[in-house]
This record gives sequence, structure tokens and C-alpha cells, in this order.
Amino acid sequence: MPERDLISYVRALGAEAPHWLRLGIGDDAAEVALPGGESFVVSADMLVAGVHCRSDEAPQRIAAKAVARAHSDTAAMAARPLCTLVTAALPGDWDDDRGRQLCQGLWSACSAIGAPLIGGDVSSTDGPLVLSVTALATPGPAGVITRAGARVGDAVCVTGKLGGSLLGRHLTFSPRIPEALALVESCNVHAMIDVSDGLSTDLLHIAEESGVGVEIRGVDVPVSAAAAALSQQDGRSPLEHALHDGEDYELLFCLAPPEAERLAEEGVAGVEVSIIGRVIEGGDTVLLRDDGTHCPLRASGWEHGA
Amino acid sequence: MPERDLISYVRALGAEAPHWLRLGIGDDAAEVALPGGESFVVSADMLVAGVHCRSDEAPQRIAAKAVARAHSDTAAMAARPLCTLVTAALPGDWDDDRGRQLCQGLWSACSAIGAPLIGGDVSSTDGPLVLSVTALATPGPAGVITRAGARVGDAVCVTGKLGGSLLGRHLTFSPRIPEALALVESCNVHAMIDVSDGLSTDLLHIAEESGVGVEIRGVDVPVSAAAAALSQQDGRSPLEHALHDGEDYELLFCLAPPEAERLAEEGVAGVEVSIIGRVIEGGDTVLLRDDGTHCPLRASGWEHGA
Repeated sequence: MPERDLISYVRALGAEAPHWLRLGIGDDAAEVALPGGESFVVSADMLVAGVHCRSDEAPQRIAAKAVARAHSDTAAMAARPLCTLVTAALPGDWDDDRGRQLCQGLWSACSAIGAPLIGGDVSSTDGPLVLSVTALATPGPAGVITRAGARVGDAVCVTGKLGGSLLGRHLTFSPRIPEALALVESCNVHAMIDVSDGLSTDLLHIAEESGVGVEIRGVDVPVSAAAAALSQQDGRSPLEHALHDGEDYELLFCLAPPEAERLAEEGVAGVEVSIIGRVIEGGDTVLLRDDGTHCPLRASGWEHGA
Repeated sequence: MPERDLISYVRALGAEAPHWLRLGIGDDAAEVALPGGESFVVSADMLVAGVHCRSDEAPQRIAAKAVARAHSDTAAMAARPLCTLVTAALPGDWDDDRGRQLCQGLWSACSAIGAPLIGGDVSSTDGPLVLSVTALATPGPAGVITRAGARVGDAVCVTGKLGGSLLGRHLTFSPRIPEALALVESCNVHAMIDVSDGLSTDLLHIAEESGVGVEIRGVDVPVSAAAAALSQQDGRSPLEHALHDGEDYELLFCLAPPEAERLAEEGVAGVEVSIIGRVIEGGDTVLLRDDGTHCPLRASGWEHGA
């Protein structure tokens, strides 16, 4: 509930936003124009041990995930990484070694992305580790791509494979920065988002922000091997995992069908692209089953527990 | 120890910093230049309940402090507030009302400073409340003032009165934004910092970054009524509180003596200015006692416990 509140406060700016603020580009990111006309993109994301990763996970892996999540948000806007700030609350029982591994992990992850760590703050806490990462970026060659531009008739595409990230990928993914930049260099992308909350939930974000509906063909959703493995453990179908698991951090985007078909053949920056559906009129997100029947695609993404 | 590590990693950038990064402007803030030549200032600061405030403090007051601390960092660089992002980890036992009060407090504090809340993230935690605030600003009329420009012969000045902020002011202060902007409009300020860690510690930051020494006259340090009140409780002298308490969030700056004398007479933006000492050769920070003797002024600022 408080989360909805914070977002609604931020959204309220839409009505009376300063001229330099270009909103509507996702919950956690904004494009800010400076007085002289240049702009930058900024996103802030929090990672809490026990909520977004296990508390006993290796510090370097926690650091890498925190940095990658924040820069996945700006990647989904097809922005170029600029720099990173990190604040950290370290548990009182962490020894120096553990703290040093975390700092090295943060430093390395930021450098690898091309967004150097330029500042931050470290505090102690009686609770679990908390990291907050601020990702700064500059608009890419096509400017900033938002969730709001999908058009009726567009193809809906996704990079990579979805589902089952809990088995490991949620800690080890790379934000799709080169892929997003390559996409906008070769195609006219109308709307884009990263799949963080789950395909079903993030499709709804695009539908809502663009004022359109989306129809997804279940048979065309790219299901990861991890989703299949998880399915054997819990009895939910691999497709359900691919639709709802979240933390895939793949790119979900809409563009004209001919461009989508080319991408489906060629991929982008070495990564496969799947056409999973199309943009339709109305505000519904719909799943087209194998047997030809439709059902509502309910948003039911979830956060990984510890 | 980990804090030193993070800062040392950031400082290591000094050797091979990208051309767009202008460092040396404080632990937690940086000026970043965009490709076209415009720049912005960014600072990130973390507040942990139980460390920086009492856990049972009113949410609005916690929110106000968190926002004010981050923007005090950019104010000390004489930058103009631009916008704010906040990430929050809310304790599981907080009810909706408490969360809503926090969000409203964040929103109000950002608006009051003229740096609207434009984004963020909310999570839950098993531990205490954690807030991370990213303050964004644009360089003021004199560009960015760092800690590194103090010159031998400069007067050392401070706004307001120091010490005893634990009695309340650490929660209710306003960052010295109008004062800093007025300062650089009327004077040539060589170096500046906000007094967050304690006068003794922050003087050392200026001395180290500028490669100079500082001599402070104890009798000229402006002591707050709260420092006197606290002195009666704990037996430490009011001057000791003024020198070491921290969290005053006043401006500490160095400039030519004639300008300092004018400020001491006229104040700045309605706030009193005191000349407390002078910049000397060497790297020492020295306290000149009432009886004419000198002693080393050791950095012993401290953080408020809960």
C-alpha cells in the first residue's frame, strides 16, 4: 500500500510537472532536462537481503544483482549508462572481509556496465543488508523509449527466454544494455519495458500506459529451461512460470510487424527475439491458448522470497 | 572499515576518472558533465532508523531529515536543487497510515526544498526503516564549490550556531540552500562543506582536500543554546559540543578576510556568519585557547545514536 502511495505521489506530478521533467517512463525512472536542453535518465532501486536475495548469498553476487537491476530500468529506455551511486546499510555482524567483498562487487559491477561508481554512503544497521542503487544514463540514439507508445497492430516481442529465474538467473543476469541500444539503432521501437515484475504484469504496464490491449499466444512465449525445471518441482506449468515468475530482466517491446519478423530471424546483438503476440484495441491483456480459446491474462508477477 | 573502502574505491577514480567526472568535491557528491557540456550535481545519502534517528520518531520528521541531509550535501557545493529520488525499506510491522505519513513527508520535504520527488522504490524489510535519498542539483552561479580550494590567509567562517543538535535540530534543520547561493553571488568562496560530521572533522576534510592547515579560535566558535543545555546534562563544555557534535548542517567556508568581515557584519540571507579562524600553512588543524595556548584540534565528530 505505501508503495502505491509513493508512486501515486510521483504520478501526481504529471498534472503539474516542471517543464524539465519528462514523465510516464516507468515507475522508477525519469528523464530530466537541464536548463540548456541536455537531459539525463535516472532510476533508483532498493535491494533488501531476505526479500530480493538470500541473506547468506555471496556479497559479490548481491552487489552485482543490485547494480544490474537499477541499470536494467534505464536499459529498458534504451539509454546509455553514465554512472552509478550506491548507498549501503551493512549488518552489524558483518566483518571487514564481507564488507570489502561487497564494495569490490559494487565497483566491479558498475565498471563492467560502463557506469562507474562515483559516490555513495555506507551506514550500519541492526537489520538485514540494504543496498540502494541510483543508475544514471544519457538518452540513446533514439531518445528515451517509454512504456507509452505501443500502437494497435504492433507486434509484441521479447528477448531471451522467460521463467524460473529463481533457480539462479535473478542473481547473474546482465542488463540488456547493448541489446536495447542495438534495437533502437536498427528499428523504430514504439514502447519498451524490462521484464522485472513478470511478463503478465509488465504487459499490463505497457497496455495501461499506451491505452491499448495485448493478445499473447501461449505457444510463442519463449520458456527457459529453468522454468521447465521449476515446473517439475512445483507442478505449475513451464508456461505459467514464464508468464508470471518475474526477474527475467529481458526486454519486452512493441514495434511494426515487419521489423519484428526481421528481429525474430536475426536476433539482436546476438540474443534471440521472439514475437509473442500483438497489440489490439481495448485495455485487456489476453492469452490465446493452444486450443484456440482465449482467457484473460491476469497480472500475477511476484517477488522472490528469501 | 567498509565505509573507508567504498570511499577509497570512489577516490581511486581520481587517477583514471572519465573526462566527464569532476571529483574531489566530497565523499558523497559529484559533478557529472554530459556529452554536450552541461553538468549536474548528484549526492546519495542513507538514513537508518536506530542510527540516524530514533525508530519511534514521527515518520514525517524522519522523512524531512533524510531529504534535508542529502540536499545539504549539494547545498554545500552552492548548487541549485533540481529533483529528488527516494528508496525506502519499510518495516513489516508498519501499518498503512505510517507508510502514508512517510510518503507525504517525503513529498512535502522535497517540494519545500524545490527539488520535487520524481521517482523511487519501496520495499519491505524485517529490520528497521531505511531511507536512501538521491539529491540532484545544477551548478549554481559560481559553478561548483568544492572542499579543495582553501588558500593560506583565508578567513574560516561558519553560518548559524553549532552543537547540541541531538536535542532536536538534527531532525528539523533546513539545508542552507538559499544561504549558499547568496554567498556565492556576493563573494568569491574558495572552499565549502556542510558541518555534518562535526566542526572538527569537517575542518579536517577542508584542510586535507586543500592541502593547508586551519587555526580555530575557540572563543569565536558560535555555540548554540542547545550545546549549553547539553553541557549541563553531561558535563562536557559547550565548546566541546560545538566542536564535535555534528549534524549542525551549517555551512563552513573559506574566503578572503575582507569579504569575511563584511559577512560577519551583514550575515547572509538573514543568517549570521561567524569568523572562527584562519587558513595556515601545513596540514594541521589547531585550536587556539582563551589563554593563548594552542592544542591540536582532533577530529572527533560522532553520529547520533538512537
